[in-house]
Amino acid sequence: MITKDPTFLKRQGANFLSLINDLKRNRKAAAQDLQVSLETIEKIIAGESDIPPGLIQRATEVWPVNRRDFMIMEDDCPEGVLVMRGEASEKSSRIFTRGGADYYEYRDTAMSKVAPFRPEWILELCTVEDNDPKNSSLRWNNGHFMHQFTMFVGPVNFYYIEENQKKVMVANTGDSMYITPFVPHTFATRQRQKGLILALTYGNKLLGDVQQEMSSLGGDIPGQFLLETRSRDAYFASLLQLQMAALSLSAEDLIVQTGLPADRVHRWIKGEAFPTPEEYGRLADRLNVNVYDLMPPDAFDPGVIVSYLSHSKPRRYFNCQIRELASIRYLPYSKALLLDVLEKAETFPFKVPLHQYCYNFGDVSVTLRWDWKGQTREVEVGPNDSVYVKPFVPHSFSPCAAKPASLLSLRIGGKGTGEPQRELSHIGKKNIQRIYQEYSLWYKEE
Amino acid sequence: MITKDPTFLKRQGANFLSLINDLKRNRKAAAQDLQVSLETIEKIIAGESDIPPGLIQRATEVWPVNRRDFMIMEDDCPEGVLVMRGEASEKSSRIFTRGGADYYEYRDTAMSKVAPFRPEWILELCTVEDNDPKNSSLRWNNGHFMHQFTMFVGPVNFYYIEENQKKVMVANTGDSMYITPFVPHTFATRQRQKGLILALTYGNKLLGDVQQEMSSLGGDIPGQFLLETRSRDAYFASLLQLQMAALSLSAEDLIVQTGLPADRVHRWIKGEAFPTPEEYGRLADRLNVNVYDLMPPDAFDPGVIVSYLSHSKPRRYFNCQIRELASIRYLPYSKALLLDVLEKAETFPFKVPLHQYCYNFGDVSVTLRWDWKGQTREVEVGPNDSVYVKPFVPHSFSPCAAKPASLLSLRIGGKGTGEPQRELSHIGKKNIQRIYQEYSLWYKEE
Repeated sequence: MITKDPTFLKRQGANFLSLINDLKRNRKAAAQDLQVSLETIEKIIAGESDIPPGLIQRATEVWPVNRRDFMIMEDDCPEGVLVMRGEASEKSSRIFTRGGADYYEYRDTAMSKVAPFRPEWILELCTVEDNDPKNSSLRWNNGHFMHQFTMFVGPVNFYYIEENQKKVMVANTGDSMYITPFVPHTFATRQRQKGLILALTYGNKLLGDVQQEMSSLGGDIPGQFLLETRSRDAYFASLLQLQMAALSLSAEDLIVQTGLPADRVHRWIKGEAFPTPEEYGRLADRLNVNVYDLMPPDAFDPGVIVSYLSHSKPRRYFNCQIRELASIRYLPYSKALLLDVLEKAETFPFKVPLHQYCYNFGDVSVTLRWDWKGQTREVEVGPNDSVYVKPFVPHSFSPCAAKPASLLSLRIGGKGTGEPQRELSHIGKKNIQRIYQEYSLWYKEE
Repeated sequence: MITKDPTFLKRQGANFLSLINDLKRNRKAAAQDLQVSLETIEKIIAGESDIPPGLIQRATEVWPVNRRDFMIMEDDCPEGVLVMRGEASEKSSRIFTRGGADYYEYRDTAMSKVAPFRPEWILELCTVEDNDPKNSSLRWNNGHFMHQFTMFVGPVNFYYIEENQKKVMVANTGDSMYITPFVPHTFATRQRQKGLILALTYGNKLLGDVQQEMSSLGGDIPGQFLLETRSRDAYFASLLQLQMAALSLSAEDLIVQTGLPADRVHRWIKGEAFPTPEEYGRLADRLNVNVYDLMPPDAFDPGVIVSYLSHSKPRRYFNCQIRELASIRYLPYSKALLLDVLEKAETFPFKVPLHQYCYNFGDVSVTLRWDWKGQTREVEVGPNDSVYVKPFVPHSFSPCAAKPASLLSLRIGGKGTGEPQRELSHIGKKNIQRIYQEYSLWYKEE
């Protein structure tokens, strides 16, 4: 069996058809190119058989395609919610040593094939007696590819390097942080067996296609995609230069065609000035882009955000008290909340437009209720259980005892939020299913 | 042999390591989970062997991963430029019939595995005597998934449906158009054997990961990603609601915490008003996003853009005369130019930050010279030859005769431009190689 996902072969067939459509091959032409029978192609498209590896190999030889293009994602969360029990997490336990000593105990928590999270429960095995970031028992890593959000549970020290300086955050339950990829860091506890972290790593927009494209372009090309982050003026200059180079448009022609003052344009290109809203409009019109495509961030973020729970003002949201945890401006679709579930929910107050991961870090179970295709479902999420909830699923949490339950809720965008969402919106509601579920040729074969 | 790409196995090994890193498995833990020897894992990571299909199958059973995650892209363009000769295009010729009659002759032109274009040369076999979009010899398609840019060569009629009306564009050489995915359309010629099109279809940001994520989320979830395109106010309302739902933030708390007037906030949420720049700043600060994340497009684009060459003002760029062809505001990284190469180039005037496709549609050959890792290379691009050039490769065109040569140049963003580029820029130059070329564990194993 390839997978438990009953839609897999059907969707894989649709993807195969879409792929040959894009190459402007009908079934017969595809069969000829791939040297297989028309029946083989028909069965793949109908979702009646898997794609033989030999066929994919042949396709990569005769078509400008990659093996990757034939591979779809499995849906391991067909009812919208996926739970991992604390006991299952415990079974996944593994100890990592650093410098010969046990340093971390890792446990997996809820992860889905459809969601880009890699959340781990990590017990700190290194105990420190001070808060000195130069403590010799610390073992630093080199940083890693993924973005990391962390919520602390118990007395944990978080150490990181910022501007070549070793720093420490002395954290307790509910405190949180975000670290940019590749920032070296380490953790220890101030009390043996009492300090752990919920470390939620994710690749955001870079994992997958972007990473693969950069890798296949090779050489020094990937580095040239970087925009200048020295200042807002310089960042704007990078964006402007990018658009001018995309059109092979000289500064002189830009000046003549927009009627903008020559000295202004030259200073923008050098990163020494910033346009007014009116100038922005004229630039965007000439370049046929939107103003937002030319805008730098409002401010530049540090590499590490630390957030103390005591600084987060609680607010009420239906039956929950919410406190916001660490987030960073340049990741607009990554948000973290601490939910105190105070009382029984009467409706479905939550419908999160992002992938959501929750971990029950308190000692009270909650009932998670959700709507799936018009039917209400429910599951109990006990202490140390974790769940994944698909985007836009209406849901609620209710405590199973007379006291509040405590959940960490992390929400992140997948591949579809942001720019792709804008592109999808232009294409419109009528056609959205055809984007991922093309069961027909692009024309009527007669 | 798996591929001609000599970097393939090395890069695939790096990807495999990165994947197990993200799952917080070292080599030994990975070997245990996958029930293979440590040596098998070592060889894959070192790029000494391909990944056995059985291992990938096992991985999808025990880890929250997809087959797709193991698959990288091949580099079939290792020197920055890939050429397809006119003769090779001719050999790929295939006739498509519609309604029993021959309707199109298709030929492939330059395509690369690293670039998202699917450019075709298409001869119109349906000849019309009038410009009536209801002509009964026309055979309409259903539209297709990809974005389509088209340049016309010779007397071609382009028919499309807009606002439920059949329309016609009476086109000649150098005229061009862009059609949104799924807009039904068809083509015919006004002179037998004389009308052809260069049809460049591409998936932009939606093909690949986005499409696969939408497919695996399933049900009615994908449709909920769509933003409201009724008006700029309504579009802004969608973006604001998205951010509020991401934080589970009520309108009341937004009002209290920003100090913005209640009636303003309520009207924004309903899509009935638009914030001032100052209000925009306060909203973005509270939501911890950038102002551009909350901005609607400056204007809404029609589904079809038609562009007549005679309306495009020529401008000089080094040794070329440039006329801009059809583009659309909502695709800021898709640009098309007609290049008249007037004289010999002395430098490398072009360094395009996008993937570039060129087709020589005139009768004069050009020499394409480019810089690849400090060495100058060149190739002759004759009439009906086509080329793909990787992003950021410095290059020039020079005519091979005493008269100008004519090229179509289409430039499009890949997966890396736009938001991922902003994300990469934050992570910084020092680390960019580690994003796609991780040859080490995330920590030092001792």
